[in-house]
Amino acid sequence: MKQNQIRAPYLLFFGAETELGYAKTGIGLAQWRADLCIGQCNLPEGTVDVGLPSTSLIDAVEAGVKSVVIGTAPVGGKIPDSWLPFLTEALTLGLDIVSGLHQKLSSIDILRETAEQFACQLIDIRLPPTNLPVANGIKRQGKRLLMVGTDCAVGKKYTALQLEQDMRKLDIDADFRATGQTGIMIAGSGIPIDAVVSDFVSGAAELISPENSEKHWDVIEGQGSIYHPGYSAVSLGLLIGSQPDAFVVCHDATRENIMGWDSFSLPSIKQVIARTIELGKQVNPNITCVGISINTSALTEDKRKSYIKSLSDEIGLPCVDPLIDGTSKIVQFMEEANLIG
Amino acid sequence: MKQNQIRAPYLLFFGAETELGYAKTGIGLAQWRADLCIGQCNLPEGTVDVGLPSTSLIDAVEAGVKSVVIGTAPVGGKIPDSWLPFLTEALTLGLDIVSGLHQKLSSIDILRETAEQFACQLIDIRLPPTNLPVANGIKRQGKRLLMVGTDCAVGKKYTALQLEQDMRKLDIDADFRATGQTGIMIAGSGIPIDAVVSDFVSGAAELISPENSEKHWDVIEGQGSIYHPGYSAVSLGLLIGSQPDAFVVCHDATRENIMGWDSFSLPSIKQVIARTIELGKQVNPNITCVGISINTSALTEDKRKSYIKSLSDEIGLPCVDPLIDGTSKIVQFMEEANLIG
Repeated sequence: MKQNQIRAPYLLFFGAETELGYAKTGIGLAQWRADLCIGQCNLPEGTVDVGLPSTSLIDAVEAGVKSVVIGTAPVGGKIPDSWLPFLTEALTLGLDIVSGLHQKLSSIDILRETAEQFACQLIDIRLPPTNLPVANGIKRQGKRLLMVGTDCAVGKKYTALQLEQDMRKLDIDADFRATGQTGIMIAGSGIPIDAVVSDFVSGAAELISPENSEKHWDVIEGQGSIYHPGYSAVSLGLLIGSQPDAFVVCHDATRENIMGWDSFSLPSIKQVIARTIELGKQVNPNITCVGISINTSALTEDKRKSYIKSLSDEIGLPCVDPLIDGTSKIVQFMEEANLIG
Repeated sequence: MKQNQIRAPYLLFFGAETELGYAKTGIGLAQWRADLCIGQCNLPEGTVDVGLPSTSLIDAVEAGVKSVVIGTAPVGGKIPDSWLPFLTEALTLGLDIVSGLHQKLSSIDILRETAEQFACQLIDIRLPPTNLPVANGIKRQGKRLLMVGTDCAVGKKYTALQLEQDMRKLDIDADFRATGQTGIMIAGSGIPIDAVVSDFVSGAAELISPENSEKHWDVIEGQGSIYHPGYSAVSLGLLIGSQPDAFVVCHDATRENIMGWDSFSLPSIKQVIARTIELGKQVNPNITCVGISINTSALTEDKRKSYIKSLSDEIGLPCVDPLIDGTSKIVQFMEEANLIG
């Protein structure tokens, strides 16, 4: 019934990768958890550089590293044989291995046997914990801010991480809570909510943001969209289990249809706000929308400014591109609305 | 990606059971699929009688039986050792074994090995198929009637089976579609929707009611309630994947709170109708409520009549206790509304 807990600090491993585009997990970790990343390590053929010092296994152990985190995802999601000597050596040195790949670490005999012998963990981020509970719906102490989307891949994880950072800057007690694999790597714990059996989705969401001190904020990574023809059940389960006090709607400025489901128009931001409140108020009558986070990367600077302004005027809430503006405006709005005490 | 398919006809097996209350699966099969049940069989200590002829394994094989269906559920959900000689003999005679118990048939060495040797199937109804797809949301030919509930355990399966029977009596081309284990036993196929990983719940629902001829009705067993604090994700996933043209709300006349979640008031029938239409219209703009099915077993006959009448007046739709009234009024309403062509 426990979430996977990744032991910090980390050594990021990129194998023989030469394309930065496949190294998103490592890039995310280096960006959002630089303080936990001691170094990076490539095989001789690899060239990925996320700006950390190149560090050997021996040096990593001396520097106190506890886990080797696989920071890249080869096409097909398999663990190449060429990685096994490195990973096996890491286990013999007492390090855990953390992976978000499709192929399970524990499915490889030499890794499983070595991990057992040296009492190390093989952590497959894609595997949810077993024995998850059904949600009890009981209100938990602490505050929760959930990212919801008009679609998949609209910046929910990035927005949540930026909100955590901007809240902490103001000495607000806040933690990013992860519901997807890259997020779990960054948070160091979490549950891949879309891999949970449907009976337990809301129960898993309750575990992801457990009871906390009264003024503490969990900033919860969202998944999918309540309007998504494939994934709405995941989004609803997460909403009900999260019992959010507040939520931010994440959207891509140029998206018109559900990505990959082209016959479905994207819902409007107003529709997403209304439905999220309607469904969420059952577990938290105070649920309220506190801002809009927009990916405006496809707009020119002029268009970006007018888009953000007119949307903010229309909805009556702070509207930001978190990559460009940060999310301070949303946090400020929450403070002015006396949500942050 | 296939649903489990149970091969008919069946021999119902009740082990050493003496309490009819544990034999619900067998009772349901004998009630709703009498034509597929050749006989019943107890171990010497057992006394369960669901009204079928007592039939030995040898006689069952001669009568053309293809599957032994375990019709009882011992407390704890384990398969007693005392059953193994009987089940093993059934496999050696070429029969499949079908079970809805927690303990998997395939977890028992002697059953797995014998099934392999004699090329028989061990069908664990609780296990969803692997490689389920994500829902595509594309409209399928054929009509679909979904049971939705104000709560769990309000008669959704019974209502769906009665509707199938009443529709067939009027020569309407209709099939009960199962989403839970007892239902799957009765239907002979189906997917236990609450055991499906959340990403694939709606995709599983699409498989449960596949494309069909234009005038064909799938009558789909519902699960949980869209208002349920634990299971709403399951209910929404099933609603979105089912793309229902019509739905029936199932309710227990004396239920006031969500069963087992006592701090949550039961939603009103009107609330369930409104929310089901609001959420379901995304995948079927024509979705409409065609009736209310009430479990009135706790009411006196006088109270029952006035309850049903006042509810029907209030909602403006046919309202029945399917055990007492059948569901013909609902089917008639569908015909008058030109839903049945």
